[in-house]
Amino acid sequence: MLEKLTFKSDIEIAQSAKMLRIEEIVGQLGIEEDDWEPYGRYKGKLSLDLFQKLQNVEDGKVVLVTAISPTPAGEGKSTVTVGLGQALNRVGKKTIIALREPSLGPSMGIKGGAAGGGYSQVMPMEDINLHFTGDLHAITTANNALAALIDNHIHQGNELNIDPRRIVWKRALDMNDRALRKIVIGLGGPVQGVPREDGFDITVASEVMAIFCLANDLEDLKIRLSKMVVAFDYDNQPITAGHLNAQGALTLLLKDAIRPNIVQTLENTPALVHGGPFANIAHGCNSVIATKLASKLGEMVVTEAGFGADLGAEKFLDIKARYAGIKPSAVVIVATVRALKMHGGLAKEYLKNPDLEALQKGMPNLEKHLETLKEFGVPVVVAINKFVTDTDEEVAFIKEWCDSRGIAAEEADVWAKGGQGGEALAKRVLETIETEENKYKPLYELNVSLQEKIETICKKVYGAGEVQFSPKAVKQMKQFTDFGWDQLPICMAKTQYSFSDDPKKLGRPKNFTITIRELKPSIGAGFIVALTGDVMTMPGLPKVPAANNMDVSEDGKAVGLF
Amino acid sequence: MLEKLTFKSDIEIAQSAKMLRIEEIVGQLGIEEDDWEPYGRYKGKLSLDLFQKLQNVEDGKVVLVTAISPTPAGEGKSTVTVGLGQALNRVGKKTIIALREPSLGPSMGIKGGAAGGGYSQVMPMEDINLHFTGDLHAITTANNALAALIDNHIHQGNELNIDPRRIVWKRALDMNDRALRKIVIGLGGPVQGVPREDGFDITVASEVMAIFCLANDLEDLKIRLSKMVVAFDYDNQPITAGHLNAQGALTLLLKDAIRPNIVQTLENTPALVHGGPFANIAHGCNSVIATKLASKLGEMVVTEAGFGADLGAEKFLDIKARYAGIKPSAVVIVATVRALKMHGGLAKEYLKNPDLEALQKGMPNLEKHLETLKEFGVPVVVAINKFVTDTDEEVAFIKEWCDSRGIAAEEADVWAKGGQGGEALAKRVLETIETEENKYKPLYELNVSLQEKIETICKKVYGAGEVQFSPKAVKQMKQFTDFGWDQLPICMAKTQYSFSDDPKKLGRPKNFTITIRELKPSIGAGFIVALTGDVMTMPGLPKVPAANNMDVSEDGKAVGLF
Repeated sequence: MLEKLTFKSDIEIAQSAKMLRIEEIVGQLGIEEDDWEPYGRYKGKLSLDLFQKLQNVEDGKVVLVTAISPTPAGEGKSTVTVGLGQALNRVGKKTIIALREPSLGPSMGIKGGAAGGGYSQVMPMEDINLHFTGDLHAITTANNALAALIDNHIHQGNELNIDPRRIVWKRALDMNDRALRKIVIGLGGPVQGVPREDGFDITVASEVMAIFCLANDLEDLKIRLSKMVVAFDYDNQPITAGHLNAQGALTLLLKDAIRPNIVQTLENTPALVHGGPFANIAHGCNSVIATKLASKLGEMVVTEAGFGADLGAEKFLDIKARYAGIKPSAVVIVATVRALKMHGGLAKEYLKNPDLEALQKGMPNLEKHLETLKEFGVPVVVAINKFVTDTDEEVAFIKEWCDSRGIAAEEADVWAKGGQGGEALAKRVLETIETEENKYKPLYELNVSLQEKIETICKKVYGAGEVQFSPKAVKQMKQFTDFGWDQLPICMAKTQYSFSDDPKKLGRPKNFTITIRELKPSIGAGFIVALTGDVMTMPGLPKVPAANNMDVSEDGKAVGLF
Repeated sequence: MLEKLTFKSDIEIAQSAKMLRIEEIVGQLGIEEDDWEPYGRYKGKLSLDLFQKLQNVEDGKVVLVTAISPTPAGEGKSTVTVGLGQALNRVGKKTIIALREPSLGPSMGIKGGAAGGGYSQVMPMEDINLHFTGDLHAITTANNALAALIDNHIHQGNELNIDPRRIVWKRALDMNDRALRKIVIGLGGPVQGVPREDGFDITVASEVMAIFCLANDLEDLKIRLSKMVVAFDYDNQPITAGHLNAQGALTLLLKDAIRPNIVQTLENTPALVHGGPFANIAHGCNSVIATKLASKLGEMVVTEAGFGADLGAEKFLDIKARYAGIKPSAVVIVATVRALKMHGGLAKEYLKNPDLEALQKGMPNLEKHLETLKEFGVPVVVAINKFVTDTDEEVAFIKEWCDSRGIAAEEADVWAKGGQGGEALAKRVLETIETEENKYKPLYELNVSLQEKIETICKKVYGAGEVQFSPKAVKQMKQFTDFGWDQLPICMAKTQYSFSDDPKKLGRPKNFTITIRELKPSIGAGFIVALTGDVMTMPGLPKVPAANNMDVSEDGKAVGLF
């Protein structure tokens, strides 16, 4: 019967599932009525007061799900995250899933949701992929309130001496809208403001989103918001949101959004879906508040980070975990036969054919990620996420490859079978946590120079032979050090497809040179972004946008969203 | 004791009030659990399925609250609307209030909420004035999804032959941001889109908002969205959202927002707060869906329209009521001693002094509005909204002036005393509905020419001696007639401060000439906007924005919002 069910689409599975009322999910966690609010029948927001009430509860164990370098073949990281969470509950561990919330804009472009897949999904997927509980709208509003305050300040006399050519704060929309990338604003004469160059980012690229996901509480949120650098003055000194006295209003605009959203999976496992920053110019993890609250509410927390382990896991372990004081108990790295074969040089159209040679050639990608995770000292489990085209030989090959190196590895069939398909993986994760020593520490100390931190990541995590800095980057490192920003961690912006800065170099490239083109201060978030190439912070729509096929059915259901 | 209480601020009164859980409010209306959803503990959204279930219930009576021409002295129209609703419940009529929902953007500029005042407020006012249930964010998103689809269409080959110089669809933000009024987008070379002039309106000025408030149901919403004119092609023919096949996606983005919000007043009277279009370039009334649903749920509905009776009531009676098939039972026109004295020529700083002469001189403003309402054939009651500085003589003067002309008039003290202070007014409204014949009909037939419709409004409602049309307006009237748009009603965009197009002419100007500068098609909303001057559709922030004083208190409450 399960075989037959696997041919249902994600939306069919989701719409035929039996959701519990959100009060049941919340009630099962022992949360009292005063400590949460419903948003519809199947979504809720948890009060931050819970931290105070649960302060003496022991923290649950945090398991991070990451992946090999992503390929167009797909790895299914969110699906494994959801499936593993469901499986841990099945094997007797009270587990909460902590995921990022998706951006609405991209769903207008390309069909597809971002809430897991098959029998490992979070629900209600239609809501989660559209407006959800309004968090992204609140972040958009806060971002744009600050932008309006900047331009108004200049228009009203510019007491802070802001150089309109050096405003780094951009406006934001949760929309794929390429025409807004580069714009000129303030046209139309003296009453319409001061003309200057500007641009819009998609909301998830806003520093407000990064801060939202790194703040420990409302007070920390406000402090971080006040530190955001929005411009430089005519003396080239940084101007912050605090100089504009904007942090109170921005915090007010975020006060409801900052409370974690609670929903459920297809198997009624609680999931906190909250915050979702870019994984290149930001750190790509769900909110610290949600992760920490989940660890107070469950014995186990399963969470994920964006892109592959070289970006997502590195940032989770060097930025998020460090700031939040989270000690991850294990890292699960998702690999698939298909993706490894692509790393081995097989073209996408041949991936459905068994090919042990290509698979073998692709293993060094996994090998390098495993070496990196070892540097962080965390116990690791490889999850082989099953696809229908995988052969037994191919799966066995990966398992044996891992076994022979003393690395825990299990197949996960969570897309087709839900939590049941992840039980072996769940048990292996628990066993690994119990038996392996956890020596987690960040890869670098904060008190070394920006250059040394960047070189450490490039060499140890990516395997670069050399790191080159552009003249601009060299100048910025000196400037940022003068501003006292050199004590911050690094957030690398690099292609997710390769360890190198060339997206075409799959597998495990070696002895390559990586170029740091430019730095970007995210002082409120608390990191310096190091850009290795152009990063697209405002996507466009394709020739035939998914929006063209969207509709609402007569009974009020979403059509064309998935 | 009441005297003492009146010195509390709105926010103090609101925060000390005892709200009922929203399920109690909903339950008292006999709404079953399947037919609404909670948004937090004190807000809800009602299902559109209720229309089907209540189709055999007799419609409640709709009372429209309007006002004399607004002055800086303040009229308190929302306060009277809320107070009258509370009072009608007190005198035994099951009454629902139907209000517009406020825009967030302006609250960043000038301190002050938009949810009534004193002891006649809707709650929770902090939420209502910020993100509320996300309706405005959904409208912003729908507006901007369409904008992105337009520019993407041009970028991807422009099959529809859209002239980029003739795109009339603007982007929108719920923010006071003057720098976005006139912009140039699509800069940066061929991969960033096609450069063109553009601009942002504040969200409430979007035609999506006007449609949101005029649609009868989800299907009507979709049809209206498809009719929106977004541009003209190189042959100067209109291009609609339907040509871009955007109506399905836009409807999907609005499917939750379109369900009316339910909240309560300080006296626990149910209030549907839903939709809030501009009162100049749009019709300035809350949603038809909320008004009609309220009339199915209550014996009485009290609702309001923007600005004075020359704009708000005219549009309610000629546009909204006509499209929705609503027959208003009575119109309450709010007047204050202070505002009438301003219309009589008294400067703002002297309004607190008793001045019967100025009052007498100001009466013609009320007189003209009363004459207009008579043209529509609806029973009218004058509400004298009490201010603490009013003298008994001044109030008595207005009452006697009305009595001598056979016009019902009552004092309302709803700000200081809540529903109790409106009981006399409530009884007078009920008595007027019972005793006066209701001969409501719109002012003009739809099948006359655009010019004749505009002239009818200007002469009969404003009292203009002559109507001049600019050459552009003349050309547009011909063009719009060729497109078959001449059968639509007119939505006048005129200053709210004067019957004329000169905001300085208070009182009752006569024999003036009004100039129609330009027309604007709002084909989805279903009206032609006639502009008599420049209308600001994107406000700016003041030198010291209210945002500078906003904050969140340690216990999570809004600071500086009111």
